[in-house]
Amino acid sequence: MEQHINKAKVLIEAIPYIQSFRGKTVVVKYGGSAMVDSKIKEMMMQDIALFKLIGVNIVLVHGGGPFINKMLDRMSIEPKFIEGLRVTDSDTMEVVEMVLSGKINKEIVNDIQKLGLKATGISGKDGMTLRAEKLMKNGLDLGYVGSIVDVDTGLIDSLLDSGQIPVVAPVGRDSEGNTYNINADYAAVSIAAALKAQKLVFVTDVRGVMEDVENPDSLISLMSVAQAKDKIEEGIISGGMIPKVECCIDAVESGVETVHIIDGRVEHSMLLEIFTQDGIGTMFK
Amino acid sequence: MEQHINKAKVLIEAIPYIQSFRGKTVVVKYGGSAMVDSKIKEMMMQDIALFKLIGVNIVLVHGGGPFINKMLDRMSIEPKFIEGLRVTDSDTMEVVEMVLSGKINKEIVNDIQKLGLKATGISGKDGMTLRAEKLMKNGLDLGYVGSIVDVDTGLIDSLLDSGQIPVVAPVGRDSEGNTYNINADYAAVSIAAALKAQKLVFVTDVRGVMEDVENPDSLISLMSVAQAKDKIEEGIISGGMIPKVECCIDAVESGVETVHIIDGRVEHSMLLEIFTQDGIGTMFK
Amino acid sequence: MEQHINKAKVLIEAIPYIQSFRGKTVVVKYGGSAMVDSKIKEMMMQDIALFKLIGVNIVLVHGGGPFINKMLDRMSIEPKFIEGLRVTDSDTMEVVEMVLSGKINKEIVNDIQKLGLKATGISGKDGMTLRAEKLMKNGLDLGYVGSIVDVDTGLIDSLLDSGQIPVVAPVGRDSEGNTYNINADYAAVSIAAALKAQKLVFVTDVRGVMEDVENPDSLISLMSVAQAKDKIEEGIISGGMIPKVECCIDAVESGVETVHIIDGRVEHSMLLEIFTQDGIGTMFK
Amino acid sequence: MEQHINKAKVLIEAIPYIQSFRGKTVVVKYGGSAMVDSKIKEMMMQDIALFKLIGVNIVLVHGGGPFINKMLDRMSIEPKFIEGLRVTDSDTMEVVEMVLSGKINKEIVNDIQKLGLKATGISGKDGMTLRAEKLMKNGLDLGYVGSIVDVDTGLIDSLLDSGQIPVVAPVGRDSEGNTYNINADYAAVSIAAALKAQKLVFVTDVRGVMEDVENPDSLISLMSVAQAKDKIEEGIISGGMIPKVECCIDAVESGVETVHIIDGRVEHSMLLEIFTQDGIGTMFK
Amino acid sequence: MEQHINKAKVLIEAIPYIQSFRGKTVVVKYGGSAMVDSKIKEMMMQDIALFKLIGVNIVLVHGGGPFINKMLDRMSIEPKFIEGLRVTDSDTMEVVEMVLSGKINKEIVNDIQKLGLKATGISGKDGMTLRAEKLMKNGLDLGYVGSIVDVDTGLIDSLLDSGQIPVVAPVGRDSEGNTYNINADYAAVSIAAALKAQKLVFVTDVRGVMEDVENPDSLISLMSVAQAKDKIEEGIISGGMIPKVECCIDAVESGVETVHIIDGRVEHSMLLEIFTQDGIGTMFK
Amino acid sequence: MEQHINKAKVLIEAIPYIQSFRGKTVVVKYGGSAMVDSKIKEMMMQDIALFKLIGVNIVLVHGGGPFINKMLDRMSIEPKFIEGLRVTDSDTMEVVEMVLSGKINKEIVNDIQKLGLKATGISGKDGMTLRAEKLMKNGLDLGYVGSIVDVDTGLIDSLLDSGQIPVVAPVGRDSEGNTYNINADYAAVSIAAALKAQKLVFVTDVRGVMEDVENPDSLISLMSVAQAKDKIEEGIISGGMIPKVECCIDAVESGVETVHIIDGRVEHSMLLEIFTQDGIGTMFK
Repeated sequence: MEQHINKAKVLIEAIPYIQSFRGKTVVVKYGGSAMVDSKIKEMMMQDIALFKLIGVNIVLVHGGGPFINKMLDRMSIEPKFIEGLRVTDSDTMEVVEMVLSGKINKEIVNDIQKLGLKATGISGKDGMTLRAEKLMKNGLDLGYVGSIVDVDTGLIDSLLDSGQIPVVAPVGRDSEGNTYNINADYAAVSIAAALKAQKLVFVTDVRGVMEDVENPDSLISLMSVAQAKDKIEEGIISGGMIPKVECCIDAVESGVETVHIIDGRVEHSMLLEIFTQDGIGTMFK
Repeated sequence: MEQHINKAKVLIEAIPYIQSFRGKTVVVKYGGSAMVDSKIKEMMMQDIALFKLIGVNIVLVHGGGPFINKMLDRMSIEPKFIEGLRVTDSDTMEVVEMVLSGKINKEIVNDIQKLGLKATGISGKDGMTLRAEKLMKNGLDLGYVGSIVDVDTGLIDSLLDSGQIPVVAPVGRDSEGNTYNINADYAAVSIAAALKAQKLVFVTDVRGVMEDVENPDSLISLMSVAQAKDKIEEGIISGGMIPKVECCIDAVESGVETVHIIDGRVEHSMLLEIFTQDGIGTMFK
Repeated sequence: MEQHINKAKVLIEAIPYIQSFRGKTVVVKYGGSAMVDSKIKEMMMQDIALFKLIGVNIVLVHGGGPFINKMLDRMSIEPKFIEGLRVTDSDTMEVVEMVLSGKINKEIVNDIQKLGLKATGISGKDGMTLRAEKLMKNGLDLGYVGSIVDVDTGLIDSLLDSGQIPVVAPVGRDSEGNTYNINADYAAVSIAAALKAQKLVFVTDVRGVMEDVENPDSLISLMSVAQAKDKIEEGIISGGMIPKVECCIDAVESGVETVHIIDGRVEHSMLLEIFTQDGIGTMFK
Repeated sequence: MEQHINKAKVLIEAIPYIQSFRGKTVVVKYGGSAMVDSKIKEMMMQDIALFKLIGVNIVLVHGGGPFINKMLDRMSIEPKFIEGLRVTDSDTMEVVEMVLSGKINKEIVNDIQKLGLKATGISGKDGMTLRAEKLMKNGLDLGYVGSIVDVDTGLIDSLLDSGQIPVVAPVGRDSEGNTYNINADYAAVSIAAALKAQKLVFVTDVRGVMEDVENPDSLISLMSVAQAKDKIEEGIISGGMIPKVECCIDAVESGVETVHIIDGRVEHSMLLEIFTQDGIGTMFK
Repeated sequence: MEQHINKAKVLIEAIPYIQSFRGKTVVVKYGGSAMVDSKIKEMMMQDIALFKLIGVNIVLVHGGGPFINKMLDRMSIEPKFIEGLRVTDSDTMEVVEMVLSGKINKEIVNDIQKLGLKATGISGKDGMTLRAEKLMKNGLDLGYVGSIVDVDTGLIDSLLDSGQIPVVAPVGRDSEGNTYNINADYAAVSIAAALKAQKLVFVTDVRGVMEDVENPDSLISLMSVAQAKDKIEEGIISGGMIPKVECCIDAVESGVETVHIIDGRVEHSMLLEIFTQDGIGTMFK
Repeated sequence: MEQHINKAKVLIEAIPYIQSFRGKTVVVKYGGSAMVDSKIKEMMMQDIALFKLIGVNIVLVHGGGPFINKMLDRMSIEPKFIEGLRVTDSDTMEVVEMVLSGKINKEIVNDIQKLGLKATGISGKDGMTLRAEKLMKNGLDLGYVGSIVDVDTGLIDSLLDSGQIPVVAPVGRDSEGNTYNINADYAAVSIAAALKAQKLVFVTDVRGVMEDVENPDSLISLMSVAQAKDKIEEGIISGGMIPKVECCIDAVESGVETVHIIDGRVEHSMLLEIFTQDGIGTMFK
């Protein structure tokens, strides 16, 4: 009985958090270890289910993780390069799309639905959700890699209205019908901005932004956009963390209230970030 | 962190319960110790808030507890009797109504609203919710004691639709506008039946129905209506427990799916009854 | 037949008035003799019923009249004073609330419902309708006397939408859940302003504003806010009439189109004021 | 003042009538003297306006009165006959339609709108409201005289929904697009039945059904369908009254709750019939 | 089969046109030969039916064509003149209204309904759609000739919402209930502007605006408002074409996107103008 | 001009067909040559676009055609057999799903969207649309081949409501989350039945049911279910045609009004079947 009462108290503690998130929109960029480790994956899905059940409008955007390269290997598609940059030719794009929209996307849908909630997997091509154009980098044509020109939220809105959890594969189309692979982080930012989301959560394989990467106690829980820019300037944020943090800055500047980098390797990381005072990762606002 | 993760797991365990109660209607007859002990009262309100937040249409029906007699004493209104039965004359009825609709009802509203949710206190007279008639007992006129003839759920429905928690004082009116005091247990049964509620919960000062009142291990967790009738016949259910159990039988026979007797003295008794496998009281179905 | 035809003509004369009030919102501050004399009270309720039936969104705000003091006496609660000002301590507040929300409020509901229309009695605590704070007068703490900080019209709107006549007791709460007694005139002004009402009617025990209180023919039928301010300045409006007229000025300045002071002692005073060319009281605009 | 109060009392007396008719549908067959005498006409329009304003869904069906023959004369169209029965050839039908749909219909609309309410004049051809077929009498082809096969209430319903008073000219069409003149009494019965109207009122030039036509005191205020049939059988109802009463019987048997024959020559006859205990004409039920 | 496939290809070619007009509002001023020649009339109705079926909100405004004079003749009403200008006295107005609202209007309704679609014929008096005032020309009172003061689109909107094709006779009323004959071209412009129509089409007896009236190859397919004004100035647009083009200019300046003058004598002229690249008449924008 | 007018006439001929299909639901099983030949494919998409634009609720169900085997080959997945029947092991299923949901499904979506209409590609797993179970054939476990237990049309309905064309890959899930390959014809039948579709169209590589397969003039345009059963019995329908016809029978018996087998190799075959008197294939009813 004692134990049951303690559990009840945990639920009661959640009341203020539930109250503040009901009816809000949260976009989750789901990727990294949290997509691979099946135990962690299940917990992530549970967190998502719980948010949905307490009335959060939750939208998932996923990447392709290691699956795409595995499939390209298996189909003996040789990677091509121009001046050192990888090129996505049409053969590669076909495989990328099949893996993203036909495998990973539907697996996530399935994992959510195992918990009894309804999910619908779409790609950015469906309902003309993501309008893209070829991304030129230093004047080089890298093939079917695209950047987002416009987000049409009509389909996502109607899925949310009918109680579904939309799961979005980062694939877009241009007005002539060409298909593009889109960076999942950028897709998440664009979608969150278009939906006027309250929160955007990046599920990653790092703990968040560290003052000193060597010092595990130096996690920065909360950062303003100005601080984030300073820390990039100062070199405290560096390497692969820079584009991630730039996405966070971009999202906040596009009107998303708070953006979070969390460690997908931690059990129930989503819940802990959002339902505890300090969270477990870094929050940008 | 460990502790936080454990708390997250408790929330996750709640998912199937939340799923099965979203959109359902639960009527709670609130009375006894749970109305008096301020710590227990707060927990009861927390349970109610949680149910509301996860999408349960919750309706409270309350009694008058010890407050009515205290007020009658204070105002020196002498109790009257006919052949041993107490009579509610118009002076008494005036006080009863003031205490029920003006004091207890508004206190409960206030207690819920302290948690940030909106509640509206009504009496059965408002919106012609409870149509009553004079209750005759053995041919004796006991004054303004009424039984329910009809429930108009229009007002309660519109309060639920606009996100309020309706709190109902057990006072009714007849078609000529006379005011009647109504037994709160009966009022709760009638309202639950009229709302086609999934659950009706009686918050009481006993643990539930016991096979042997002397033996604390003999609690009966689940009973059918047939079993309940048998146990009354056999004398296992006796004394003050009989009318309570008869209310439970009545509610189930009127279409309420499950009816619960729980011990309001236990912390978070509502939550424990509904969110655990066996519950903590007696469930009738 | 002749007589019937004349009656028909009276109904027909009402057409332009009905046309101009359908769909409009009228707030009535109901108090004074019109609450005590049972014949006058019945006529007032008839007027209100008629307005409701022809499509006016009518909202009643009532005071406590002589009932509160009678009850305080009967319960031997001694009035307390600070520097000559009466203090509402918690014992007093408890009685005030019981009388307002549990007695007068429900009586008015009952009186309206006798005419076959549905009414719902709420206090300003219900649905967090009236958010109040402690009113400090000359730096003195007068106890649980409050002023209105904010009106949440959600509950009143949903009652109007579902065809109910809302009857409001002037009791509010602060964000910590303390209960306050609120001047009914002020409550009516705040509610009318928040509802963007077309009309606010004060039912009083005077005929209206008189040019000369001694001269019964000197009633002023129509006044602008500027004129009202001048007449206070000039001393023509004086004594107990000043706060009443200040309420009218306040309401007009808050956006209420017209504000009326009428004499509740006159039969069908509401109807006469609103359905005749000149009215019977004083109209401010 | 006295006089004003008396007027107020008349309005108050109307409360129960207003309550019982709000939201109900009343079809009025408007014809006879009430269409010609301009003072009587104005009063009829006032009655209709009042019913609309208190929430009655009112629908007018009108006939052509003396205007049609006047116009046929003026245009020198010779009446044709087959075996003594008048034939409506296409030339005649053209004039009939112009007068009904283009003159009388729009005049009634105008008369109602003078009172500030919106009306829309349609013929039974509009929105395919009245589907007709050629009426054969004793095997004779009388030209464009039709009987109603089906009523499509879609257009009338949408006019009522948008607050208009529909005014219907008794002209129908068959499925090939031929236009037919339809007896206005029959059209009113069909429309009332299709709308599931509560009341159908025939405005006529007689007082109602008399026990003895010579005796002005012998008006029958209320008749059952069975009684009506008996009185036709017995010859008490005779001559031109028979088809009128048969329409009443037909309407009641088609589900209209009450059908009334009233004397359009009496001022405010509609109001008197519906808003007084006994009415002024004959009611069938 | 070959032939069927070719027909299918024609339908497919229509796709982009259908896409661009779905949900748009098109007002058609229908008059001239297209109202008289029965074969041409049928094709015009087919065009209108097709537009309705593919989701265009189509509204017809018609004139009186030769029918009015014919009827005035037949009824021996002598035309009256003041200083050479024709006067519409009340006798004339009565006939004008009967012909417009009772004959032509209902014939068009009938013609559309023969194709299986629902139409409703109204005059500008119905639902107070066209509020007019007496039109004074050079200080002369020409009787019941009116200009439009205000358009209330409520009735037309509700007819469109319920799937009807509104057919409007150009008759208006002033606030005292006087009836006025209104120039149908002006009525169409006012209605198109009030409805914020995308297109206004004038069905006429000319091919459009010609650079040189003698040269059949000189049709101007597209004109800006500025160009139109220049061409009037330069005398290229002259005679009876001037008021027509001024209507087009007026409509474009009132917010109608494109205005068309088409030749109603050409088969399916509406369809050809709107569903071909260059159209067949003159488009103003 | 002549040519344009002829085209207009073709559109006009379509009016009765458009009228009879607006608001109806048509399910198309899309497969065979019509999926491979790019010119034919484009025409099929045009037909679908046209149906959508004229107000048909169109739903596509597609198969995998030759693409699946090509991909299995390319990935060197060896086909497995049990007693001569092919087994779908989990490796195969993974590829099947990727090709169906990630390649073909999204290509169809893209092809439709090139015409400017919005489409959304889902698999039967999304929104729990197709609940399946393992299909046992003669007691043999063929792996992840499933039959449909239940169709939840919620997602398809909400896509239709928001103007999307749903494109469904025939993949289902059981309640434990296992994924199954489902015969596309069966999926189409189940979906059409669940949607209460008016029409189900099978796009195939045959002309329809032939009385004599050798005689190209012996196509049967219309068959009752009884006739179809007879012709199977008699051996006139034989071989691969039997399961196809059984699907048609099944659909009609499940409430689909008409079921069509059409030849996808014919240009605009959908349009020809539905918009011509006799159609081009075989219709079952």
